[in-house]
Order: sequence, then structure tokens, then C-alpha cells
Amino acid sequence: MGRVNVGIVGATGLVGDMTASILRERHFPVEDMRFFASARSAGRRLNFGDRELDITEVTPGCFEGLDVVFVCAGTDVSREVVPRVVSEGAVAIDKSNAYRMDPDVPLVVPEVNAVALGKHRGIIANPNCTTIQMVVALAPIARAAGLERVVASTYQSVSGTGREAVDELTDLSRRVLDDERVQPRVYPHQIAFNLLPHIDNFDAQGYSGEERKLMLETRKIMGLPELLISATTVRVPVYWGHGISVMVETSEKLTAARARELLAGQPGLVLQDDPKRCVYPMPITAAGTDEVYVGRIREDESHPRALHLWIVADNVRKGAATNAVQIAEHLFRA
Amino acid sequence: MGRVNVGIVGATGLVGDMTASILRERHFPVEDMRFFASARSAGRRLNFGDRELDITEVTPGCFEGLDVVFVCAGTDVSREVVPRVVSEGAVAIDKSNAYRMDPDVPLVVPEVNAVALGKHRGIIANPNCTTIQMVVALAPIARAAGLERVVASTYQSVSGTGREAVDELTDLSRRVLDDERVQPRVYPHQIAFNLLPHIDNFDAQGYSGEERKLMLETRKIMGLPELLISATTVRVPVYWGHGISVMVETSEKLTAARARELLAGQPGLVLQDDPKRCVYPMPITAAGTDEVYVGRIREDESHPRALHLWIVADNVRKGAATNAVQIAEHLFRA
Repeated sequence: MGRVNVGIVGATGLVGDMTASILRERHFPVEDMRFFASARSAGRRLNFGDRELDITEVTPGCFEGLDVVFVCAGTDVSREVVPRVVSEGAVAIDKSNAYRMDPDVPLVVPEVNAVALGKHRGIIANPNCTTIQMVVALAPIARAAGLERVVASTYQSVSGTGREAVDELTDLSRRVLDDERVQPRVYPHQIAFNLLPHIDNFDAQGYSGEERKLMLETRKIMGLPELLISATTVRVPVYWGHGISVMVETSEKLTAARARELLAGQPGLVLQDDPKRCVYPMPITAAGTDEVYVGRIREDESHPRALHLWIVADNVRKGAATNAVQIAEHLFRA
Repeated sequence: MGRVNVGIVGATGLVGDMTASILRERHFPVEDMRFFASARSAGRRLNFGDRELDITEVTPGCFEGLDVVFVCAGTDVSREVVPRVVSEGAVAIDKSNAYRMDPDVPLVVPEVNAVALGKHRGIIANPNCTTIQMVVALAPIARAAGLERVVASTYQSVSGTGREAVDELTDLSRRVLDDERVQPRVYPHQIAFNLLPHIDNFDAQGYSGEERKLMLETRKIMGLPELLISATTVRVPVYWGHGISVMVETSEKLTAARARELLAGQPGLVLQDDPKRCVYPMPITAAGTDEVYVGRIREDESHPRALHLWIVADNVRKGAATNAVQIAEHLFRA
């Protein structure tokens, strides 16, 4: 790989910050690095390895000379910034929802559909966190037996919302433990020691934006536009790592034993399936790692060709930053 | 209702203690009350309203003169104590798993199958907490449209395990917040800020005991021995109240609107389904109440005749103590 000039928009947020860390961890050959953030953070300085860099606002021409820009700053910012990145000659790897369903934009999880990268026109979309970890586990099952239907229920950590939600879980947990008054600000209700079946806005059919993302993005990434899929997404009082309970109906019967073999052979996926010895995926063990973990693999006894999977990954790493860096690795591979 | 002589075995545990409270809250006409517990608690005294009562161990003849005994002390104790209750002339309402699947023992959720009480032979089994709340919500759907298949993923609070698990969540949450070393004792792994897809022991098919209970008990209570049903049960860091994400396939198509009407008319069930206004069932609002809450009602877009439901109830109250007291109310109704 040659040396690459990199920008990060939203460099002070959870995902932007983690993207910088993972570029270093994975020895991505960064030549020039530029950090961008909103007016609130601009003017501060931030370390990248032993370099101390200024954080600046996005201004005309600021992306010139860069090869790739990770845009980690929410959908509205992306709609404004991504076209500028492209017009100034860099590739945008966008972590927001702005371009994911655009037919001209590849939506990529490298272990599943790296081939889609060949067709990009300057923008590559990074999928939603839950989608990423689910498709990594579904891909080997789809290849071996065909997917007919997926029903998913998620258990999503607060880091998916961002840094202020992580702080809110800490603050409200302390208050509940100390019997103090609880006043949520980030979420509509108390998240500490509670469950919120509410992630993003609701549509006329009663689905949340997060549920729609999981359904639509899974179809696009897996190249199965007609895949039958439905989801329920729930926020849980966990810091790092999302869980997904998935029921998957296949075209051909797969035994649990065969599914375990297939999943064990999938790059990026780690099989943790020895429940009698208390071995199964958990947020606290997935946190801080780049793999997707799968376990509790069982044949669904209510259907002749269905399996249950329990899938966990670090939503800020593989669910966002790591996946985006992996996309960049594919793009700039010599 | 005439005056009733009542015993509680396991009077110092979470469910036994709550049973005594609920008998008073609901003005159950208790004449004599006797509290029983293990040697560890025997000798202590416990209030029942303005009466202060001795706690004694179970001894031969201790149930004589009682009309009903709530047995709230785990499966092994129930196997020993319940036959004694019956032989000494009282009705046993057993909250353990010991007799639930016995074909001679009614397994009862009064809103769903109170009629089964007519056939009891001295023992009535109280179902598992998750089963109770799920069948209250499924009953009106089953009556209107027939059930074909149920796939459930649960989000279960620590109070389902007992008092020591409630204390462990508090202790470990404080330790995590204070960056101290975490050493779980009740659960095999840290429950604070984590998810454990592990409730009860695992069988050869990879299902946990809790999953089997939900599957088998639902069939028995609903009188649908052939019902297709599968489940994944997960422990979450919540104190009081279980959540269940349910996908239900019906024999006849039910719109979400019609399902809402049916659910709104079910005794014991409260519809909380206005997600755009942030109204949906949550553990913190269900806790301390006797109803089952249902919301997030949607048509499953991956199946022509399926719905999604999000069901929450206080697992120690409706999931255990309240349901048992309701059974007693039916038995001793004038």
C-alpha cells in the first residue's frame, strides 16, 4: 500500500476518534492527516500518534490533496460535506445514513461484499452498526443454504447514540443507585436499568428508523432485494457492544452443527458456542475487539428450516470505525 | 368470599414477601396467616399488616387447618413440600417449575385459562414469569385469528433470579462505575452493563431451561399442544420487569389496527402504543404494577399474517406473586 492522505470529519466524536485510533492500530499508511470538527471543537488540538494536529472547521478547499475522508458526523452534516469531499478529489467513506440506500453508492461490509467497492463514484457508505454485525454472520449461511426470511430483535448499547449517551448512562446509573432524581436529556426516558424499544423516529407502519435501516441495508449488502426481513430494535443499559437475537429461515435445511462449521470458517467472525461451559457472545467480551461473535446456535423448533443465532460485536469498532478502515484498506491496497 | 387460612412457604424470599404484600393490597380475606422459611430464617418474625408473626420451618402437621399455601421456594423445595401441603388438606399454589408440566396439574393464568382451575386435585401451578406476560397478550390474538407460530426473544430482569441477584446488580454496577474489580457470584459473568444469553441450564439442542419453559408452558396454558414456538431468553441489567419481543404468525390475517383493538379489550392488559409520542411499554413504568403492557404493535413485513408485539410486565408481581393471588381469588370466590 502506498502512503495515503486522510481526513476525518467529526474527529472529536466517538466514531471519529475511534477511526483515528484504528487507523494507527492497523498500521494504515497515513501520510498527511487532517482533523475536522464543528465550530465548537475547532481550534483545539488532537494527537494522532506522536503528531499534534489542529482541529479545523470544514471550509472550501479543505479536502484538496486528500485521498480519503472518513465522514463521521451525522446525516445532515454528511449531506453537506460528502459532495464537497468528492468535488475536491477525495473518496468519502460516509458513516451516516445519508447515502446508504443511494443506488449509485456501494454499501459495504468487506467480509461480505467487498466486490461492490469496484463500482464506486467517490462515495462509499458504511452500514448501520447492527446491520454490519448481522450480515457478517448471515453471509456464510446465505452462501451455503440461501436466505428466505430473517426476524431480528436487537439489544443495542448506548455508545451507538454517541458520547453524550455514554455519559448519560453513567450519570443516571449513579443517580438510581443513590436514590436521586433522574432527569434524562439524551433519551426520552431513563435508560439506566431500563429498556427503550425506540431507536430513531417511527414511521406510519410503526417501525423505527433503526428497524428500517437493518431491514433495507441487509437486503442491499447481501444482494437480496426481495429478502423477507423484519426487526425490532431496543436500547439497553450497556455501554459498548450490541446483541442481536436472529431467527433465520433458509432455503435448504441447515443443521446447527453444519451452521457452526460454516460460521467458524467465516473471516471476521468468531464462534463462541459452548453454552454449557458459559461460553457465548457478550458485550463485555466483544468490547474493544474488531470481530463479530456468534453463538447460541440452535435449530428453530417451530420451523423445518430455521436457525437461531445470538450475535454480538463492538458497535463503535466493527459496527462503525473498524468497518470503515477496512473499506479504506481495500481501496488503497497496492 | 369467606375468610381463608393462608400459608406462605419461602416467606422471606422476593416472591414470598411480595405474595404477602399483594394479598393485603388486594384485600384477600386472610383469616389465619402462617409464614414458613428455611432454617436460616426460622425464628425471625415478620409483619403481616398489623400482625407480627413467627417464621417457622416446615414440620409435619404445619399446614393442618390451612386452606391454601403459596409455595415460593424453588423446585427442589416444592417437590418435597407440595405433597405435604396436599396431604394435610390445603391447596398448594406452587410457583416453582416442579409440577407445571404434570398433566394432572392445572397451569393457570386467570385471564387466559381460569376454567382449568375446575379440575385441580390439590395442586395448581403458577407459570414462569415470561410465560405469564406473553400469554396474556397472545390470548386475544389467538381467539380472534388463531395462532400458528410464535418466535420470542426476551429481555429479563435480575429480580427473576431472586434477592441476591438484585443485590449483585447493585454491587457490580457500583464497581464498574467506580472502576473497581468485578467478581460475579450469582451469575457466571458480570451482569452490570452486560447481556447474558443464559437463563437456567442448557439441553442437548442448545436451548436453555428458561426457553423450554416458555415454549412448553405457552402450549399448555393456551391449550395448543401443537403450537409452533421457539424462544431465546437473555438476562439484562434491569432490576424489575421483563421485556419480550414477539413475532406471532396467525391463521387469519390480523391488521395492526385490529390487533390494537383486541389487545385494548383484554382484561389485565394495558395498551401502550403511541411510539411517536414515546409511549411504549418499559420496565420502569411496569414495575410496581399488576398489569401486562403491550405496544410496538406492527405487521411483520416478512410474512403475510404476522405481527410484532413488545410486551413488558413486573416479573415479581404479575409474573409470579400477583398471578398466584389471582388464582387464589378464583378458588375461594364465594
